[in-house]
Amino acid sequence: MHKSKLAGLIIDCQTDDLPAAASFWSQALGLPEDTSPGGTDGRYVDLLYPDNALHVEVQKVTHPSRVHLDIETDDVEAEVERLELLGARRVQQVKTWWVMEAPTGQRFCVVRVQNSNFDAVAKVWG
Amino acid sequence: MHKSKLAGLIIDCQTDDLPAAASFWSQALGLPEDTSPGGTDGRYVDLLYPDNALHVEVQKVTHPSRVHLDIETDDVEAEVERLELLGARRVQQVKTWWVMEAPTGQRFCVVRVQNSNFDAVAKVWG
Repeated sequence: MHKSKLAGLIIDCQTDDLPAAASFWSQALGLPEDTSPGGTDGRYVDLLYPDNALHVEVQKVTHPSRVHLDIETDDVEAEVERLELLGARRVQQVKTWWVMEAPTGQRFCVVRVQNSNFDAVAKVWG
Repeated sequence: MHKSKLAGLIIDCQTDDLPAAASFWSQALGLPEDTSPGGTDGRYVDLLYPDNALHVEVQKVTHPSRVHLDIETDDVEAEVERLELLGARRVQQVKTWWVMEAPTGQRFCVVRVQNSNFDAVAKVWG
């Protein structure tokens, strides 16, 4: 048995100016930038969602701009296998997470637990 | 003065089989499909998020699959003007909402109030 849930959304920006991109999305969504250590590292800036109920992140990327979803889980391999059975496919493993592609074409990531509401909200599988 | 907040995320699927797309995303994210009247109309299926804190929708589209964000507001025109000042541009008005494009390239929509937590969570502008 393992658990998973929607972790949040990543705003991928093809830009050389991450601070400007983060500033736009912060103001557009009304979510403050996380300026604490760990909230940004030059490649991404976290946006603070009320009650930390959702992880929202502005990320600097080299591919075309888009928005992608993250799924968080206490067992990445088991979750990737569950999603494969639903029709998704593995694209690439990066550090501790997997990039996957949905049958409908969107890419998304399967990541380790990020949010403090994981235990309360995550679904149990298997 | 007007208010706005992140309304949710729309999973745009270029597909002829909306039920299959909705089924995948429902199971992938662990969010049940809304089978009530108004929860689906053949072009979209709502996925039920805990406490209705976020609007999550699987939508059948003709453009390439992607994920886009919606911003909800009590004054669509004022919110569109606010976002223009931040650098976004108007793409197209559809019924009661506007499709806009961020300076970083992602398209998003500015829509009327959808979620019951709007008054409690929305930011006040101007």
